[in-house]
Amino acid sequence: MKLKTTSLICSLIFGIHLSFGQKLDKNQLDALSAEQFPIALQELREFLSIPNDAHYPDHVDKNVEFCDELFKKRGFKNVILTTGGPPLMLASRNVKNAKRTVLFYIQVDGQPVDTSKWEQESPYTPVVKMSDSQGKWKTLDWEKVKEGTEDDWRIFARSASDAKGPINMFLAAIDIIDSKHWKPNYDIKVIMDFEEELGSPHLPGAVKKYKDELKADMFVILDGPRHISNQPTLTFGARGISTITLKTFGPRVPQHSGHYGNYVPNPALTMSKLLASMKDDHGRVIIPGYYDGIEIDDKTKEILRNVPDDENAIRKKIGIAAIDKVSDNYQESIQYPSLNIRGLSSAWVGKKVRTIIPDEAIAEIDVRTVPESDPEKLIQSIKKHIETQGFHFVDEKPTEEERAKYTKLISFDYKTSYRAFRTDFNTEIGQWLYKAMKRAFDQEPVRIRIAGGSIPISPFVTTLGIPAVSVPTVNSDNNQHSPNENLRLGNFKDGIKTCLAILTERF
Amino acid sequence: MKLKTTSLICSLIFGIHLSFGQKLDKNQLDALSAEQFPIALQELREFLSIPNDAHYPDHVDKNVEFCDELFKKRGFKNVILTTGGPPLMLASRNVKNAKRTVLFYIQVDGQPVDTSKWEQESPYTPVVKMSDSQGKWKTLDWEKVKEGTEDDWRIFARSASDAKGPINMFLAAIDIIDSKHWKPNYDIKVIMDFEEELGSPHLPGAVKKYKDELKADMFVILDGPRHISNQPTLTFGARGISTITLKTFGPRVPQHSGHYGNYVPNPALTMSKLLASMKDDHGRVIIPGYYDGIEIDDKTKEILRNVPDDENAIRKKIGIAAIDKVSDNYQESIQYPSLNIRGLSSAWVGKKVRTIIPDEAIAEIDVRTVPESDPEKLIQSIKKHIETQGFHFVDEKPTEEERAKYTKLISFDYKTSYRAFRTDFNTEIGQWLYKAMKRAFDQEPVRIRIAGGSIPISPFVTTLGIPAVSVPTVNSDNNQHSPNENLRLGNFKDGIKTCLAILTERF
Repeated sequence: MKLKTTSLICSLIFGIHLSFGQKLDKNQLDALSAEQFPIALQELREFLSIPNDAHYPDHVDKNVEFCDELFKKRGFKNVILTTGGPPLMLASRNVKNAKRTVLFYIQVDGQPVDTSKWEQESPYTPVVKMSDSQGKWKTLDWEKVKEGTEDDWRIFARSASDAKGPINMFLAAIDIIDSKHWKPNYDIKVIMDFEEELGSPHLPGAVKKYKDELKADMFVILDGPRHISNQPTLTFGARGISTITLKTFGPRVPQHSGHYGNYVPNPALTMSKLLASMKDDHGRVIIPGYYDGIEIDDKTKEILRNVPDDENAIRKKIGIAAIDKVSDNYQESIQYPSLNIRGLSSAWVGKKVRTIIPDEAIAEIDVRTVPESDPEKLIQSIKKHIETQGFHFVDEKPTEEERAKYTKLISFDYKTSYRAFRTDFNTEIGQWLYKAMKRAFDQEPVRIRIAGGSIPISPFVTTLGIPAVSVPTVNSDNNQHSPNENLRLGNFKDGIKTCLAILTERF
Repeated sequence: MKLKTTSLICSLIFGIHLSFGQKLDKNQLDALSAEQFPIALQELREFLSIPNDAHYPDHVDKNVEFCDELFKKRGFKNVILTTGGPPLMLASRNVKNAKRTVLFYIQVDGQPVDTSKWEQESPYTPVVKMSDSQGKWKTLDWEKVKEGTEDDWRIFARSASDAKGPINMFLAAIDIIDSKHWKPNYDIKVIMDFEEELGSPHLPGAVKKYKDELKADMFVILDGPRHISNQPTLTFGARGISTITLKTFGPRVPQHSGHYGNYVPNPALTMSKLLASMKDDHGRVIIPGYYDGIEIDDKTKEILRNVPDDENAIRKKIGIAAIDKVSDNYQESIQYPSLNIRGLSSAWVGKKVRTIIPDEAIAEIDVRTVPESDPEKLIQSIKKHIETQGFHFVDEKPTEEERAKYTKLISFDYKTSYRAFRTDFNTEIGQWLYKAMKRAFDQEPVRIRIAGGSIPISPFVTTLGIPAVSVPTVNSDNNQHSPNENLRLGNFKDGIKTCLAILTERF
């Protein structure tokens, strides 16, 4: 290991393990973060200048190289983990007498860009902007930015929030503890994903292959936006996702609706009846066993209620008068698996419409799973339900024999992309992060029991068997995955503080 | 009126109204038709050589001109009826002491062509083909055709069956009676439509405008294919068609199905439930009053049962194991109005699928109406049903106020294209045509009480108030509306005989 920073040299020469960091209060953390912030912002600017669309191998290579530098110069030992696709990189930094090993997950690649839709020269040329009195974003000169910034200014570039910003927050916090010769009392591992926006297809295999290298006591995900209120947030899980494609079959080819209306059964009606049979009028799944095993105790309900969701504002923003009645509030609703029709099609609508009885109807379903519901079990309960509705399952297309024999024909294809995970509030990692956050902000963090959306980190939880919690830091209105992605500078500063509090929170 | 044929001159000079035609039996009619057939075939060949896509005004003009000649030289008096679009032409030929006036409808224009899909030089260059032992169509030299033909040979060209063929059948029958100095004891009017394949959009207005010119006691439609058994057929009506477009509304824009699955109501589910509520599991409409007024007595049921449908063969051809249970046979099923989902769409399926809750779902419906069911009443019963399902109707898109107030939002657009018509078997026209057909073929004609499909002639029935019956003559496997349209020569000959029997059937 090549030593680069004087702080590390000092701590090694003198054998002193300074560990006063954990006593820092909110004000001290604020001051240290504010001091490091301008340096971190310049490093972030440099990092964001490297294009990072994982579709392009040269983008991946340049980011791998840059990350290698970033971590090496802070005393990390880096290892490339080959995957068959873009590699993973594992950076490690140990301490003597470490009580735990904490594995941090960071994502380096970003969504593809359409430069024409960005209000700046390039998504890979970061700019800082301020909002004027009309709410319009105005670009600021970088020289002016160096003189001083305001919390509501934002840095605009691809990956500013998702998720290079959090990497620089973490590194800035490392720089702070190193400059003070403080050391965490745990070993640090950082796993870097260079293909997250492609759905991390090589991750499950790689986690199995590098099980030993990735071994840790807990798993911290430095990704995602804070709660919409922009209050400090901890997220304890994410729903999984499985998808199903259903296809019902009518006549072999579309038939004239005049000649055969009232005679040839219509596959669009068959599909409608099937979909209608899966849920009640209030959006609750009525397939037997679908919500089995989910029990939410009063204490948990209270934590869910304490999430500061303004549901009137959400409904207004989305444009709906009422919600599905799986529960009566947002946080409780997403504790249950969903069953969503994400696409539906039969023959043609609009200008292409024809007076026919269609030959088939297609429904695309997505099921968001929760830890209580094994995806395979849920999917089989849906399949069972379809069977009890009188359907005969076919492979791809019905054979002539099946057409002659069965009145209701359907094909059923499914796959599970990511599994759900959820870590208890009261686990060691949950308590440890909670304490760090409370110290950093002098207030209760918003605790999200499970996020509605799905993230591809389940292999860490399921294969490695370690509890995971997300520490989201960025503003929720960051235009993630869209043009003009940005990171609020106040969130960047708070993010440095968040990481500093975590690095100085002791076991 | 310029007299052209010697037969007409004779009958006028001598004042002789020869009227022995009605005594002709099957064999005599066969002989006369067979004799006229080769001449008629050459005239058909010439007629089919004139392109007739109503999208092109020069096509229309050339056909109007040719028809004018065709009828003039047979002693008809022709009048052009302007419509604002392609004109109608009315040809009339009167007799002294006429007991009735019979209005014949013929269609001159044909479907658009895609020459590349025809197995001949041009759809407007007719060829005669015979089927070889492998069932392949082989083109014959016209010189060989002139030497003699077989009934199973076919003439291939656009409009051979739909519907220039029937025009030449009629004209050939006129030639036969004229050559024999026979006269019908009724006045003949022939209305020629040059835009039928466009849906005759100007016909309703024109029928109103030319009410007096079109006045008649009965209306004979020389169009459409015979029953699939190719037995002589009379069709006493056609279902009407109305269409409805339904659109249900969910979130203002599509929402992430992870964030909001279980929370934001899904418009594809709402649509599925609505469509499912309209029919039972056997395809029967369960909207109150939908089938009201339809009573089929035992005698009618017998006539329906006597139609030689091979329903096992139909189901096999279409590829279905069972039929909708509106009735237990085909003919009875189409006595009822239908309610068919002809198209369905929400968000995307297949490769374009996205994990979203869609913003809207669209269903395209067609309703085939019968005389007992006023289309407006039927449509209002559907609308009423939707209302009882708790929907609020919006214009095009919901306003912000509607989004905030109502949980189930839908738009409802409809139009009635053609109305249904049906003439009783026992009317004068029904009996008269039945007798003519029975004499011509020495067997009961297949009597279709109502055809499932819709034709744009309802203005004649509703505006003029005259009973109508179709006399279909062409083979049902004629590739109507498709490439390689054809007319079986045996059907052409039988068609001449059919027209001859009608022209010689007296009141």
